[in-house]
Amino acid sequence: MREVLAQAAFQLFLERGFERTTVDDIVARAGVGRRSFFRYFPSKEDAVFPDHERCLAEMTEFLAAADDGDPVGAVSDAARIVLRMYAANPEFSVQRYRLTREVPGLRTYELSVVRRYEQTLAGHLRSRFGADGDGALRAEVIAASVVAAHNNGLRLWLRSGGEGDPEVAVDHALAMVREVWGRRDVPATPTAPAAPEVSVVPAAPLAVSGGGGGGGDGEVVVMVARKGTPMWRVVQQIESAVGEN
Amino acid sequence: MREVLAQAAFQLFLERGFERTTVDDIVARAGVGRRSFFRYFPSKEDAVFPDHERCLAEMTEFLAAADDGDPVGAVSDAARIVLRMYAANPEFSVQRYRLTREVPGLRTYELSVVRRYEQTLAGHLRSRFGADGDGALRAEVIAASVVAAHNNGLRLWLRSGGEGDPEVAVDHALAMVREVWGRRDVPATPTAPAAPEVSVVPAAPLAVSGGGGGGGDGEVVVMVARKGTPMWRVVQQIESAVGEN
Repeated sequence: MREVLAQAAFQLFLERGFERTTVDDIVARAGVGRRSFFRYFPSKEDAVFPDHERCLAEMTEFLAAADDGDPVGAVSDAARIVLRMYAANPEFSVQRYRLTREVPGLRTYELSVVRRYEQTLAGHLRSRFGADGDGALRAEVIAASVVAAHNNGLRLWLRSGGEGDPEVAVDHALAMVREVWGRRDVPATPTAPAAPEVSVVPAAPLAVSGGGGGGGDGEVVVMVARKGTPMWRVVQQIESAVGEN
Repeated sequence: MREVLAQAAFQLFLERGFERTTVDDIVARAGVGRRSFFRYFPSKEDAVFPDHERCLAEMTEFLAAADDGDPVGAVSDAARIVLRMYAANPEFSVQRYRLTREVPGLRTYELSVVRRYEQTLAGHLRSRFGADGDGALRAEVIAASVVAAHNNGLRLWLRSGGEGDPEVAVDHALAMVREVWGRRDVPATPTAPAAPEVSVVPAAPLAVSGGGGGGGDGEVVVMVARKGTPMWRVVQQIESAVGEN
């Protein structure tokens, strides 16, 4: 019934426009009474986004069961639940994206849904980071970053007409957030793994260099070492990363 | 006239509640005709936030005149324009914050204003980063981070009843975003300063270490070097940072 109503509503929104479709039109098309509509949807807007409540519930459940060791990874994976909901029905998702861009009321509705996802992710991070110090600040900034990255990838796919696999763009975007924040979110608990004495990683070419490409001038290495690490260990690790002997 | 209408509206919202105040009530209190209201405000919601349009215009103007060398700094400073608007009238800002939390329509209105700020900041970053590669992605994620950090500091101050200087919390929050993103936003233009061959910086103690304190076990150094940098230069720089000979 819920599905039938959502489909009837969406067809009418596409045919007549969102504003000119009434709840009476929708129930007439679905062949049910007016009360049935409001039993399933608080408003016309809700019928356009019939899966967000389920998705929010799934996200909350997923996060409650998540491992404590990697909160940024957990909220990134939680965001992917939303992506999969969109990806499950590309045609509907793309049509709805176009409709939403045209109807201000749907855009503000969508903003409030996105805000609820963001608050759900921030709540999880806050519980893991603790309320002391900058825990709440970091939680909110990381949640906003994850949502922005996810939505960037999702929108690329929606604008392309829902062609191909949306996971690629979203994974790429979330990996960027992970790279920036992943190292900073390790909780100060005894369960955290010990940091290696030295770690050296080849990094992407710096944008400031005119050059680029593999092995070119622009390539850099980044090394992180504990103070007091013997110099020979530092040199050893750098040499093996740089390939210089 | 605009100011008189906004004040009359806000007084009535506090006295009777937002929903139960009509535009007729507002114009009666202000002693003007109904049309005057709509000449200044498209809706009742707009009268609650009379300064955001001016603030958005000021932000756009500020960014258009901003130096190209430090886009993350520019959008952080642009966000502070919003803070100053709130800080200019603490009592009104705190009352409005409380009202907004209670009225769903005002909350969604506020979300759409925040989104417009975010898009303004993202647009500036996109224009500086370029549309190639991850420019748009980075622009959106950094804009979302700046907005989340700014709002975290602003909300702390609003929740405290508008006591003290809100700049302290906002500066602290924006500095965190700056630290994370500042190094990654250098535009690939010839005006950017050349990267040093090697740079070594002592970093804060890692949270994973049980120790801590100056010179203790937990301290680390971070080194960034271009590939091809002679090893002696690397060792020289690390030794001078680590203090080991």
